[in-house]
Formats: sequence, structure tokens, C-alpha cells
Amino acid sequence: MTAPAFSLDDLAGSAGRMDILLNAANAALLVAHGIRRDVEVGMLLLGPPDPPRFIRWRGHALRSYQPDIRSNAALLRKALEHGSRVERETSPGVVASKASFEEALDRLAPSFVYLREGGKDIRGADLPSDATYVLSDNQDLTAHEERAVLARDAVVVGLGPVALHTDQAVALVHNELDRRLA
Amino acid sequence: MTAPAFSLDDLAGSAGRMDILLNAANAALLVAHGIRRDVEVGMLLLGPPDPPRFIRWRGHALRSYQPDIRSNAALLRKALEHGSRVERETSPGVVASKASFEEALDRLAPSFVYLREGGKDIRGADLPSDATYVLSDNQDLTAHEERAVLARDAVVVGLGPVALHTDQAVALVHNELDRRLA
Repeated sequence: MTAPAFSLDDLAGSAGRMDILLNAANAALLVAHGIRRDVEVGMLLLGPPDPPRFIRWRGHALRSYQPDIRSNAALLRKALEHGSRVERETSPGVVASKASFEEALDRLAPSFVYLREGGKDIRGADLPSDATYVLSDNQDLTAHEERAVLARDAVVVGLGPVALHTDQAVALVHNELDRRLA
Repeated sequence: MTAPAFSLDDLAGSAGRMDILLNAANAALLVAHGIRRDVEVGMLLLGPPDPPRFIRWRGHALRSYQPDIRSNAALLRKALEHGSRVERETSPGVVASKASFEEALDRLAPSFVYLREGGKDIRGADLPSDATYVLSDNQDLTAHEERAVLARDAVVVGLGPVALHTDQAVALVHNELDRRLA
């Protein structure tokens, strides 16, 4: 259960979509008085002009990460300037590359939990340790992406009866993991 | 359990604090594809220049509320221009006045749930219906404010082992209520 990684799949590059990603990253990385050092966030940005971009936010190494998403948007823009397939740390704890959805999954943890409406209730689910939690933004994963996740033996988990924003979903996952580790 | 109201207590008027409030309002009011029409958010702003200000966001009446907090900040600034003790709707669904913490509580629902570290675990707690959930921002309630809440027979409830940001806490409360209503 240590070091959960959150993988977020974005389908466009607009400012609204970037806010969704950065709010979700905040939910994954921040607690009241600091950063979850054992968390890594992987964002896949599929919007123009040069997709796909894979940005990793490593909690243990982040230095200038802020609750203010305007500040983190500057770190993200800097990361997007690096479009090579070879990963590079563009700011402390922020690692950028060009990578496909499948490549991004394979660089994250060995086990996967896929958050999807209709999945087994997380409160009663067996959750693998050191897992990557895969969430979409306000658009669902494509059938191709979903097959890629399920082909990696992902546990399919649901969070409750109401469809939520990505950051809200991440907060619920952390609460369940925090309770199990307490 | 219908119409939960969220009361948020802010201790200063800085941009960072306003972001905290607006992110928490989003967590209270928004689901994936719309607004929770049965929710009302009450914000108490205690920062300069002319506190205390009480702003209510009524889900059933909101018209131009957005996931983008920059847009909602404009609604909030407009509401803060109304400093009278008599409530006025400054935008559809947004109601402003000057009111103390106790007055604000008394204008909200008749029963209260106070979210505080060390409270009874929400998953096993008896939660009153039609309740107001009282949360602080990144600073705890003062002893005086806490006494005012407890004097109104608030149920004291905790969310888990880790201290969270206000918006994360609100997401956890909604999930518990959504599950009980499902």
C-alpha cells in the first residue's frame, strides 16, 4: 500500500483541462500541512500540439510544488517544453517525456487499480500494495486505453453512487488507503 | 440527510485563503456533470477590511457557478461589495450580508455536524438529517467559535487518520452521505 501512484489521462490541452489535472495532482500530493512524499503522480496529456506527453510528479523530490495551481501550472508548462522520448527532470521532482498510454503505465508501479463507475466498492476491495491508481479526467478512458489497463490485471474499483470530479475521487482513494495503513 | 449545508470559516482575506474557500465550495457544490442542487454552502470571511461577511451559495438557485474558481471569485468579490447586515442576493443563488459566526450558524440548518480531528469516525456516526457541516480552513476554529458550535448540540465527527485540506474533507463527507442515501 506504500507509494500509490496516480495516473491521470487528459484528452486535451485547454486551460480548463489543465486545471482538472492540477487539482487532481493536488488531491494526490497534498495533505493539510505538507506533501505526501510517498506518492507519485503520472499525468498523460493527449492534447495538441505534440501529444502524447507523460509528466511525473515525484512527491519525495518535489521542491517548489504549491497548493496554488497557478504556480504548478508554470512547472507543468516548463515540463511540456521537453518533448523527447527520453525522460528528463525539468524541475526538482518533475519528470517529462513523450510516451504513449501503455508506455506510461509500464513506467509506473507493477500493479494497477482502475477507478471506474460500477467497479467493486473500494471499501470492501482487496487493494494491491504499491499500486498505481488509474483515473480519467472528465472524459472516460477510450476502449483502447481501458483494454491496456485491464490487460495489466487491474483491479476495477468504484468509489460510490455519484460520479465525481477527478480530484474528489483521488481524495476518496487516499482516505481509504490512509485508514488501512493507520 | 437532504440539503446538507457546509459552513466554512475563513480567517483572512488573502488570495490564498480565498482559493481555499472556493475550492471547498466546489467540492461541496459540484459533481462530475453538474451542481448538487440540494446543497447550500455558507462561507464566513473574517479577514479585512470589513469583517465578518457571510456568503451563502444556494445550489438550487445558482446560475453562473463554474468549476473554474477564477470565475467564482468574481461572484464572491461582487458579494463582498454588499456589507449590510440585511441579506441581499448579489448574483443568482449568492446571498451576502454582514453576520457573526453565531448568526451565520443560526441561519443555517437546525442541526450541526462539526468536523474535527479526533471526532467519532464518520463511517460509524449517527448523522442528523438536513444538517450543517462545520469546517474550518487551514486554521482551526477558535475556542470561542468551537463553543458556539458545541452549544448547538453539534455531533463531532472525524474523517480519518490524516489531516486534510478543506476541499478534500468535504469530498469525504459527501461520499459518506451519498452512500447512505443510495
